[in-house]
Amino acid sequence: MSSKFIKIHIPLGDESAIGPGKADLLEAIIQTGSISAAGRQMRMSYRRAWDLVDTMNRCFAQPLVATATGGSHGGGASVSEFGMEVLQRYRAIESRVNQSFSDELQQMAAMLATKSE
Amino acid sequence: MSSKFIKIHIPLGDESAIGPGKADLLEAIIQTGSISAAGRQMRMSYRRAWDLVDTMNRCFAQPLVATATGGSHGGGASVSEFGMEVLQRYRAIESRVNQSFSDELQQMAAMLATKSE
Repeated sequence: MSSKFIKIHIPLGDESAIGPGKADLLEAIIQTGSISAAGRQMRMSYRRAWDLVDTMNRCFAQPLVATATGGSHGGGASVSEFGMEVLQRYRAIESRVNQSFSDELQQMAAMLATKSE
Repeated sequence: MSSKFIKIHIPLGDESAIGPGKADLLEAIIQTGSISAAGRQMRMSYRRAWDLVDTMNRCFAQPLVATATGGSHGGGASVSEFGMEVLQRYRAIESRVNQSFSDELQQMAAMLATKSE
């Protein structure tokens, strides 16, 4: 896969509060209604998916993902209204950065090694 | 530390070809003339610094860092002309993204948890 996007992260201290992986995970939680199913869809362990959710929830002023009780892996999860707003703002920045800097990205991509698609 | 910058990465496949840490490392190599000294300055292990250099050198069409022979940790390292150009382009994109999207970053930062400075 060649480089088609500039990836952006919003940092808080040493952590990434939200970036491409966490945004994808939020969307997978919206689709599947659970952290474990979202993790499976993204081919990551439940532990990894949970860690990403935990980081987001700690880094923002309000939780982005609300979990219902019901066993260690169960009970379902949903993205809060606050989480929806963060996701929307993140995707808007990501999309506008890539539109605004497509020439610069293309110049940088031309300097990358060629990888088979 | 509160969020003051949007961090950007130029990906190649699943890897980050260059991002904030690798750009800082290139500057530290320019300053110190060696990967080990640059790693120490950035408080990372020699192994970690070397891995970052290796990733950059593999991801780009030409090596960004040239190493001289002379023992496992020795011999010195320098940033190639090609590496200087990549670094300059990366810093330019990073700086212009942050200028262009300072309002959006501020709105997002206002949604982050407060961390002590």
